[in-house]
Amino acid sequence: MQTLSIHCSKSYNILIGQGLLDQAGEIISPLCPDSKMCVITDSNVKDLYGGDNNPLYRSLKQAVHKVFEYVFPAGEASKTMTTIEGILDFLAAHHFDRNDVLIALGGGVTGDMTGFAAAIYMRGIRFIQIPTTLLACVDSSIGGKTGVDLPAGKNLAGAFWHPELVVIDPAVFATLTPDLWRDGLAEMIKAGMIADASILQDLAVQTETVAGQTEPFADSLDPIRNLTSLIVKALQVKAAIVEADEREAGQRQLLNFGHTIGHAIEECSNFAISHGHAVAIGSVLAAAGAERLGWSSAGNADLLRDLLLKYGYDLDPGFDAPALANAALSDKKRRGDQITIVYPVRPGNCKLKLLPIDDLQQFIAFGLDYLMP
Amino acid sequence: MQTLSIHCSKSYNILIGQGLLDQAGEIISPLCPDSKMCVITDSNVKDLYGGDNNPLYRSLKQAVHKVFEYVFPAGEASKTMTTIEGILDFLAAHHFDRNDVLIALGGGVTGDMTGFAAAIYMRGIRFIQIPTTLLACVDSSIGGKTGVDLPAGKNLAGAFWHPELVVIDPAVFATLTPDLWRDGLAEMIKAGMIADASILQDLAVQTETVAGQTEPFADSLDPIRNLTSLIVKALQVKAAIVEADEREAGQRQLLNFGHTIGHAIEECSNFAISHGHAVAIGSVLAAAGAERLGWSSAGNADLLRDLLLKYGYDLDPGFDAPALANAALSDKKRRGDQITIVYPVRPGNCKLKLLPIDDLQQFIAFGLDYLMP
Repeated sequence: MQTLSIHCSKSYNILIGQGLLDQAGEIISPLCPDSKMCVITDSNVKDLYGGDNNPLYRSLKQAVHKVFEYVFPAGEASKTMTTIEGILDFLAAHHFDRNDVLIALGGGVTGDMTGFAAAIYMRGIRFIQIPTTLLACVDSSIGGKTGVDLPAGKNLAGAFWHPELVVIDPAVFATLTPDLWRDGLAEMIKAGMIADASILQDLAVQTETVAGQTEPFADSLDPIRNLTSLIVKALQVKAAIVEADEREAGQRQLLNFGHTIGHAIEECSNFAISHGHAVAIGSVLAAAGAERLGWSSAGNADLLRDLLLKYGYDLDPGFDAPALANAALSDKKRRGDQITIVYPVRPGNCKLKLLPIDDLQQFIAFGLDYLMP
Repeated sequence: MQTLSIHCSKSYNILIGQGLLDQAGEIISPLCPDSKMCVITDSNVKDLYGGDNNPLYRSLKQAVHKVFEYVFPAGEASKTMTTIEGILDFLAAHHFDRNDVLIALGGGVTGDMTGFAAAIYMRGIRFIQIPTTLLACVDSSIGGKTGVDLPAGKNLAGAFWHPELVVIDPAVFATLTPDLWRDGLAEMIKAGMIADASILQDLAVQTETVAGQTEPFADSLDPIRNLTSLIVKALQVKAAIVEADEREAGQRQLLNFGHTIGHAIEECSNFAISHGHAVAIGSVLAAAGAERLGWSSAGNADLLRDLLLKYGYDLDPGFDAPALANAALSDKKRRGDQITIVYPVRPGNCKLKLLPIDDLQQFIAFGLDYLMP
């Protein structure tokens, strides 16, 4: 087991190790020996770990916790204030108090909503993140951003609220589909491009071993060697940025590389294109747009595109520049008449630039010229 | 104009002065010169200050702000997640971003909801409190507690989120009904009992001038001399406690004097008994229960009861001990098997005591024996 610590407005640990889910009870108990627990999860994860076969529940109950479970329908469409109300009403009906604890068992939607419910139930109770997707593991499970979507856009309601603990068991990723693997890899590639080029090198080498496979990420972890090491590297990138700028006044915006256009792609597709895939496409578009405008020398867009294609990503955004620009402008990252663009200077180094919102459509069009000539 | 400052996780000013509402634009503008504003208010306040006759809007617009308005139906029944969703959707539809500002113009319900909406819109934007009731002025407008009710109980969802500024114009209280005056006085009496006996003395002297009046608080400020001075004293009590214990880990619980039973009275009456009146009754019950149990010597319950009766309060809670105890146990202040009771030791000094939840009904029954023998 490896332990990473993050120190921002709150300090907490991230534990990473094969098989940790079976020990969750022993790990969690000392933090909150007298607390009731509510595991919040979605219908997919519930089906995978059903009932008493759930190693988490078994281990929590062995540690003599009273464990409740709240299940919502899987999918981004559930990430709403209505689901949050359902969770809050459930907690109140079961007399949860300020000493009790929520556990997010699932992907990003589950983690974001559980964290938000914890942030606002009785003005804030504790919660624990147990990500079951690679994407949630390297991205949303740390850093304190929680929230839900509004009809007008993604993540428009939320709070900064940190978990007490993050427990990562890479064994649970064995059940992920190739598309879910790619969702997580996209965020690892993003972390590499922002601050650790060795992640990109590690992933570039590995693809050689899977070249020619039609499904490079089958039902095993084999295709990605050193997975735990890559996860740790990606988490170190994120932790360092969050520690430097928790509230996203500056540097933390780097983590939005690929996200401004990525969120627009997700929205235009009505979430048929997943977050990770949309971010992957958005990162190439941003890199190519920046090269065309002379913000950086050539090469970064090629590197990203080639790496993503080797890992089997479909890079067709499916929407034109006007549609994407329009969707992007309802994004939180807009400030007045400008929007912050994150672009790569070189592998392992990204920068921020304010772009007038009137120029965004042209910027996206430049990216599309490159990606879909 | 008097200025009080509060220094906790955030420092901000409270401005108190007759006629400040007319100058709100000039006062607010320097804090956020380029921001859009959304005034959030209820249907009653809207009727009082309708449209362009609203001195606040006129003064904000003179300061060249783009001003939006969101009106919800007056009353505690509106203090729900559904209303919050309506506000958030409105802000998103009008492209509010992280630089924009909400203004709570109204009583406690308006302030609590506006603060909560500000806390969670885009994970937190700024807001300004302009209380239009004496109760909101001396109680909820400072201290950072925001939130809404859930079906299971009052204020069960919320956040700690502080305003940028609080603007108090006692002239607006001229429109309050006697019952609304009493709601505010109850919190001033509470502040006096907790930490400043001179508030109680000032109020005891004043009642002599209104003895025999059937409506001691008519449509003018005359019955309460030195109103601004009393407001400042009550705010100083609250500010000092919030500064010492913002998150209510200890001392801040003193501000809940009268509230544990008070909230239960409100709930049992389905909010027909107002917050201030319920707190007034709850404070006498807590004082009398504590005396019966020997936690304090006699005299405090008498002092509170006599002062409240002189000011025309109806002290009949209307519910018996089992009903009140049951309602109180769904309260946030419950921790596991105990509940925190605040009781007066002497005027200007209150203490906290943990009571086993099984003893709460008896405690309330002792109070009722005293109040309704």
